[in-house]
Amino acid sequence: MARLLIKGGKVVNDDLSVVADVYVEDGVVQQVGPNLNPEPSTGLVVLDATNKLVIPGGIDTHTHMEFPFMGSRSKDDFYTGTKAAIAGGTTMIIDFAIPQKGCSLTEAFDTWKSWADPKVCCDYSLHVAVTWWSNKVKQEMETLVQNKGVNSFKMFMAYKDIYMVNDGELYEAFSFCKELGAVAQVHAENGELIAQGAKKMLAMGITGPEGHELCRPEEVEAEATQRAITIANAVNCPLYVVHVMSKSSAKVISNARREGKVVYGEPIAASLGTDGTNYWNKDWAHAAAYVMGPPLRPDPSTPGFLMNLLANGDLSVTGTDNCTFDICQKALGKDDFTKIPNGVNGVEDRMSVIWEKGVHSGKMDENRFVAVTSTNAAKIFNLYPKKGRIAVGSDADIVIWDPKATRTISAKTHHQANNFNIFEGMVCHGVPVVTVSRGKVVYEGGVFNVTAGEGKYVSRPPFPPYVYKRVRQREQVN
Amino acid sequence: MARLLIKGGKVVNDDLSVVADVYVEDGVVQQVGPNLNPEPSTGLVVLDATNKLVIPGGIDTHTHMEFPFMGSRSKDDFYTGTKAAIAGGTTMIIDFAIPQKGCSLTEAFDTWKSWADPKVCCDYSLHVAVTWWSNKVKQEMETLVQNKGVNSFKMFMAYKDIYMVNDGELYEAFSFCKELGAVAQVHAENGELIAQGAKKMLAMGITGPEGHELCRPEEVEAEATQRAITIANAVNCPLYVVHVMSKSSAKVISNARREGKVVYGEPIAASLGTDGTNYWNKDWAHAAAYVMGPPLRPDPSTPGFLMNLLANGDLSVTGTDNCTFDICQKALGKDDFTKIPNGVNGVEDRMSVIWEKGVHSGKMDENRFVAVTSTNAAKIFNLYPKKGRIAVGSDADIVIWDPKATRTISAKTHHQANNFNIFEGMVCHGVPVVTVSRGKVVYEGGVFNVTAGEGKYVSRPPFPPYVYKRVRQREQVN
Amino acid sequence: MARLLIKGGKVVNDDLSVVADVYVEDGVVQQVGPNLNPEPSTGLVVLDATNKLVIPGGIDTHTHMEFPFMGSRSKDDFYTGTKAAIAGGTTMIIDFAIPQKGCSLTEAFDTWKSWADPKVCCDYSLHVAVTWWSNKVKQEMETLVQNKGVNSFKMFMAYKDIYMVNDGELYEAFSFCKELGAVAQVHAENGELIAQGAKKMLAMGITGPEGHELCRPEEVEAEATQRAITIANAVNCPLYVVHVMSKSSAKVISNARREGKVVYGEPIAASLGTDGTNYWNKDWAHAAAYVMGPPLRPDPSTPGFLMNLLANGDLSVTGTDNCTFDICQKALGKDDFTKIPNGVNGVEDRMSVIWEKGVHSGKMDENRFVAVTSTNAAKIFNLYPKKGRIAVGSDADIVIWDPKATRTISAKTHHQANNFNIFEGMVCHGVPVVTVSRGKVVYEGGVFNVTAGEGKYVSRPPFPPYVYKRVRQREQVN
Amino acid sequence: MARLLIKGGKVVNDDLSVVADVYVEDGVVQQVGPNLNPEPSTGLVVLDATNKLVIPGGIDTHTHMEFPFMGSRSKDDFYTGTKAAIAGGTTMIIDFAIPQKGCSLTEAFDTWKSWADPKVCCDYSLHVAVTWWSNKVKQEMETLVQNKGVNSFKMFMAYKDIYMVNDGELYEAFSFCKELGAVAQVHAENGELIAQGAKKMLAMGITGPEGHELCRPEEVEAEATQRAITIANAVNCPLYVVHVMSKSSAKVISNARREGKVVYGEPIAASLGTDGTNYWNKDWAHAAAYVMGPPLRPDPSTPGFLMNLLANGDLSVTGTDNCTFDICQKALGKDDFTKIPNGVNGVEDRMSVIWEKGVHSGKMDENRFVAVTSTNAAKIFNLYPKKGRIAVGSDADIVIWDPKATRTISAKTHHQANNFNIFEGMVCHGVPVVTVSRGKVVYEGGVFNVTAGEGKYVSRPPFPPYVYKRVRQREQVN
Repeated sequence: MARLLIKGGKVVNDDLSVVADVYVEDGVVQQVGPNLNPEPSTGLVVLDATNKLVIPGGIDTHTHMEFPFMGSRSKDDFYTGTKAAIAGGTTMIIDFAIPQKGCSLTEAFDTWKSWADPKVCCDYSLHVAVTWWSNKVKQEMETLVQNKGVNSFKMFMAYKDIYMVNDGELYEAFSFCKELGAVAQVHAENGELIAQGAKKMLAMGITGPEGHELCRPEEVEAEATQRAITIANAVNCPLYVVHVMSKSSAKVISNARREGKVVYGEPIAASLGTDGTNYWNKDWAHAAAYVMGPPLRPDPSTPGFLMNLLANGDLSVTGTDNCTFDICQKALGKDDFTKIPNGVNGVEDRMSVIWEKGVHSGKMDENRFVAVTSTNAAKIFNLYPKKGRIAVGSDADIVIWDPKATRTISAKTHHQANNFNIFEGMVCHGVPVVTVSRGKVVYEGGVFNVTAGEGKYVSRPPFPPYVYKRVRQREQVN
Repeated sequence: MARLLIKGGKVVNDDLSVVADVYVEDGVVQQVGPNLNPEPSTGLVVLDATNKLVIPGGIDTHTHMEFPFMGSRSKDDFYTGTKAAIAGGTTMIIDFAIPQKGCSLTEAFDTWKSWADPKVCCDYSLHVAVTWWSNKVKQEMETLVQNKGVNSFKMFMAYKDIYMVNDGELYEAFSFCKELGAVAQVHAENGELIAQGAKKMLAMGITGPEGHELCRPEEVEAEATQRAITIANAVNCPLYVVHVMSKSSAKVISNARREGKVVYGEPIAASLGTDGTNYWNKDWAHAAAYVMGPPLRPDPSTPGFLMNLLANGDLSVTGTDNCTFDICQKALGKDDFTKIPNGVNGVEDRMSVIWEKGVHSGKMDENRFVAVTSTNAAKIFNLYPKKGRIAVGSDADIVIWDPKATRTISAKTHHQANNFNIFEGMVCHGVPVVTVSRGKVVYEGGVFNVTAGEGKYVSRPPFPPYVYKRVRQREQVN
Repeated sequence: MARLLIKGGKVVNDDLSVVADVYVEDGVVQQVGPNLNPEPSTGLVVLDATNKLVIPGGIDTHTHMEFPFMGSRSKDDFYTGTKAAIAGGTTMIIDFAIPQKGCSLTEAFDTWKSWADPKVCCDYSLHVAVTWWSNKVKQEMETLVQNKGVNSFKMFMAYKDIYMVNDGELYEAFSFCKELGAVAQVHAENGELIAQGAKKMLAMGITGPEGHELCRPEEVEAEATQRAITIANAVNCPLYVVHVMSKSSAKVISNARREGKVVYGEPIAASLGTDGTNYWNKDWAHAAAYVMGPPLRPDPSTPGFLMNLLANGDLSVTGTDNCTFDICQKALGKDDFTKIPNGVNGVEDRMSVIWEKGVHSGKMDENRFVAVTSTNAAKIFNLYPKKGRIAVGSDADIVIWDPKATRTISAKTHHQANNFNIFEGMVCHGVPVVTVSRGKVVYEGGVFNVTAGEGKYVSRPPFPPYVYKRVRQREQVN
Repeated sequence: MARLLIKGGKVVNDDLSVVADVYVEDGVVQQVGPNLNPEPSTGLVVLDATNKLVIPGGIDTHTHMEFPFMGSRSKDDFYTGTKAAIAGGTTMIIDFAIPQKGCSLTEAFDTWKSWADPKVCCDYSLHVAVTWWSNKVKQEMETLVQNKGVNSFKMFMAYKDIYMVNDGELYEAFSFCKELGAVAQVHAENGELIAQGAKKMLAMGITGPEGHELCRPEEVEAEATQRAITIANAVNCPLYVVHVMSKSSAKVISNARREGKVVYGEPIAASLGTDGTNYWNKDWAHAAAYVMGPPLRPDPSTPGFLMNLLANGDLSVTGTDNCTFDICQKALGKDDFTKIPNGVNGVEDRMSVIWEKGVHSGKMDENRFVAVTSTNAAKIFNLYPKKGRIAVGSDADIVIWDPKATRTISAKTHHQANNFNIFEGMVCHGVPVVTVSRGKVVYEGGVFNVTAGEGKYVSRPPFPPYVYKRVRQREQVN
């Protein structure tokens, strides 16, 4: 593998920015400092980063590539999805293996891994969903943690009869996560209310995409968030709330943190960069393209509010819930919003959207940007400092970022597989110029240099210290 | 029935206090004004209320007389219970008819009524519990509303496998309450968490009364309160939260009201007058005597906090959850707190406790006292202004109240059937001197003049305007 | 004076609505009940109110008629102002006598009274402003309370160098208000920040009406509200915050009430019915017409938020701050927003606006409407039940209100003196059909029957029980 | 200077803990890694840190050594104070130079520096107070920033007539701080209310230490905090609130941060480790020893609440307000609490108290401990990563910390100059075993190796990136 020298950039970690060169060998950072001159100079790839930032590659904590869902399959597979990620400055994704109720978790894990391994262009890992409960599930969770490098499990409080688990099952799952040292994740919406609400909307003759939001307004999300936190706290289990979409849900999380609860909130590119007024767009295809669960919120102050909490530390980390369906797939729900496949893009544009709305706006600085797009994810999922930091010994997942340049997001130019982009037309300051994945330049000036399958599955050991140190101490003193 | 003249007192309604005489005939107030001289003077009972307050008799919104519960039966029956009520200045109670899961609601109603009718010494009414869901339940709810004078139904979110209904059932019950014009009530605690918490406590060897609170801390109550409000709001159903026991639950209610939700909170004498530190009392019998569900809270600032919200209007009305068990009954749970029959006293002392902690302390004035002990209950349950007000045409349920006198609460002197009083030793300003029930002096200077069965069942028509006017308008404009 | 019978309407008080006739003699309600037949029938004016509401006349707690202010004088004088009030269903106003710094309070009072007495068409009273502090001010406050029927004093925290008093003066004024039994009122904005902010805006070249809001955003109001409450609470003085214009200020008040503080918030027609986006209107005259202090807020969810708090009891009462300037007067600030005379209309439309946004929307019912437009004002300012209620013995200030009819607000048809209406084009359900002032029909079907000066000055005794009962009790027990 | 090798410890930075050796030369960390063998081994001091933590030395952001105040002078001078600091694991303090009103800031700075330089045993820096306002003050602020290494100024909102500045002066001072790139600090209490409250207490005959808290309850602190934030935000100036003492003040700060405001809160050892119930201690000397401003709060849940906010990031950094007076000095206020010199100890015990209440309790982990005791202070005051981190190139201010050992705090054994310790008897896990100041072992196993004056004044450049990056970006985009 090539030796690499990134010269003259400002190296930005979550705690500090400093002008320095970065020298990489064997996919790992070997030196960070001024005026590096690694020997021999032959075989050395040199990248000039003068006047640019050199940042840890992004980690997208939440994707669904080629996900079989709602009678369709998400358009971006692990190849196009990770390629798009790379183009946007993201060098690792964490996807979800999701078994049907009654089905094996390890088989689901193996299936997803078999899809991903031959295709991924950057490193990846897999959360696993717990969609039912039994002794077998427990055994498989244990196997996944001990043998498969899984340290996070997601439980759905929505999707009644499909993925939803009830309060008793949540209690059991949270208890066992804590025992295993895994991070418990929840999709927090009250599935019962959604089911009833959807019925009601359809009965009222509301069949369009706006019905999607009307049947599950933000208090449905906030309620479930509160409930999940309460249950998790009852067993002293750390909780990670995926896709925080609303102000009220974010407040619930922030308030819980004030009370000392160990809970992390993950807003996503969509909730930080756009809003639910799109559901009322006159063009059905436009409106349908924004359908995801939980929905985006019509309150236009939502993205700014979430960004403030991401800036001040009440929210911790960002993903995308990238799960793309093109317009033909979305059309499954032409006459019934409940049949519109849920999902939006984001894996490619997350970094730019957060830079624009977060850093360019002055809500956060470049260091906090690195924290919420990369470092905190690495800490929570126990990948730090291998991932999430540019330091000696870290994986050389690095992006050269031009904070002054701008680009305009468009489906016409993006690298994702679907034909719509929910951020269409957004002019973003902050452009990834070069992306380096474990020491290899995989994207430079708009040109890819990738091979399907060269990304690696990354094991994540249990008991991430960032999450569990406090939790274990509490066990001892209480 | 005797004609009655109450002379020279200060008549206190919820909006105004004015020195006036009150003249009563046929159990109904005929005149309120200065210097009344009703003719003929023969056969006229005259009570001197100079320097005293003349207030509407209290309405206790929440009692359980002779309730078969947890393998025992509450000690106060409808005779001793209503007698004690009268001694304390309460002239009407609303009890609960509670069918087992799968059993008939109308039969439960008839059963409770058959217990009450021959024994009650003051007027009463009956809420009915919905402990399961089916078409039959719906039909019976309709019958109860249309033929039996019931306009309120309580759903339990706790007591798993016994009374608890799930979110889907709550949704259905709330929907149907709204259709019927009934007030939906909830016992708001997460029953699943209680069940799990109790198991955990016992497994840890915590078997005493403190385990009762530890297994269901206040966030278990707050979570359910939030959930009930969310579900009720989804169907635009007014909600009444019985026995608000914690600061966090009260905050949830107050916040919902700020958002325009139609929700009423009912703190009780116990939560306003004492606290959960008693569960840690070294004397098991003492500690066990305070066991009720939801539990009293160890945070000693709870009663003052709830009283502030009762004063400012965030909480609306007060009951007692009077459900007395004597020490022998409580001893069923000697080795296992989950077996301690849940329940405390209150029906006799509610008025005095609220006067002392609310009015004497300066938190509320005498008019707000009348509102929260009587008028608001009458309004919510559609009894106003027949009950809850001293005005021409109102039932003569009247108390002469001495705001300067004091009495000391004690099991030694109280009139309830059990041998413990959770307010033991509390010195209360504010003493009921005379109690008048529908025009009859039933209690005067410590002496009763009651006959079992002379109280009447009071029918409550549906769609209380105080509750439903807004709700119906919202239906029309939204 | 004519004898009057209002037949067949639904009499709406703040606690109850009931179909009943109302009989009036000597300007006072004599009877309320079904099927009244007062003798003799000759000389009896009969009004048919079938299918209509019969409500207590509105009390506008906050007007500035013919107010000499900012180099101009408000356009509505006590004649046109009170006439417009009557047309809108308001039968009493409370205006402000405002002395310059260093000038006599009693002289100001006398001056304002001399302006009002010959012109008023309905009853009125006068708050007095305390714009400086000295022993003389104290003596005059005492005189005003004891001899002039004043029980409320307003202090300005804004208008630096003109009316503003500092924290030490506020402390003294609040202390003395409590001693006198007067209600302390504040205009709550940080005058220092406004002065600095205005300078900054002008320096940045922002001279238009939007600069008015930008230089004093809502946190400037919220800060002062918090400060006033803190100071008032330090001396146990009840506080009344005039013109609550923002969500944040309203939250401060609501939170204080939750803590048991005796504080009342007065939103106004303008803050309940429109918003500050108008300051960005391209038409300068339009934008300038909305300039008032504190400004309306650009957040369009403000009016609904305030209405929710008015509905649930966190806010108490409504006024208008009616202080009209026509476009020529507003033009004084053509090149400098700080010179635009501050003030908007409202006295005529308040009742309709609140009905439309509050009652028709389903946020509050007709009884709460009466409370917030009339009854609560009467209670707080110690006029109850002479004003604010339809009951035997009350002043016959009565409005027949058609809840089904609609009207469209417009400067073309309104009765105020200025040529602009901030509610222009608003279609309001709820129309005043007849207005009765102390027993005289002064407005009926669009026709006035008024004489300048027939309104009366209403004395307000100190220590309103609604406000002070708690306060005095706290003094005793703490 | 000696070469130093710390072997086998767990090196704890704010982001990570890792077992590693630390090699120090010339007072600076040269290497961090496993199995270091620096040559030559002669002249190498080796410290064994096996099973211990190796942490950055503490930075106490808030001390007052030998402070002439309230007619006395604080007992700990720069010698005993810094020696005590070292014994407790603190290797840098930031003290305050405080001119009298009307006096020169630079002279105050020079005076304080002349006191400190010959005495300090560890590094130090100086904040400067702005106690009045004029052009001269501005010039001196500029001089201090540009020539003297000062990047923080404190304004007092309390101490009326002595140090207090008014809102207009605050506005000016904040504006100028932002221009200079300095951190604006406030002592946030309403000085007017304190002055009035103190008078009132004395008038009521309350002269003891409890009067100190009663005359300035926590809302007096919260009000000023809210006001300072509002004013600072009006000029886009970052704000640092010194000594956060109450829950309500901490909430104000947390809420402001949620809204995106750049504000930092500094709780202190006293507010995190003890509470205001001590003011009611029967022993006057005991009670008086806790007198400081703002006072400790009687609500016993205060320390835990503040610690939760310190753990979750709502509060940022910790100091002590160390300002010791012995009992004889405190006795100046024997008959009048307003004359008790304000101040408590803390500089020695801060690290242990926070470890015990924060880390041992499970509220935060060791990394967050390092953040709040050292790293964040270094970042805010622009000393990072020279101070606040153990990394190559950082100053070797290092503590070997035994997390398992315990010690009992006592005035009998502490190294501070006064004869009372507010944490007397507290058993703390977490003991500093060795303290290294810029590479020199200054304390080991209870034995000092210090020389007065060997600490150095540390210049702090303006525009700390951690604070100002966002602020400057906001200037550009807004």
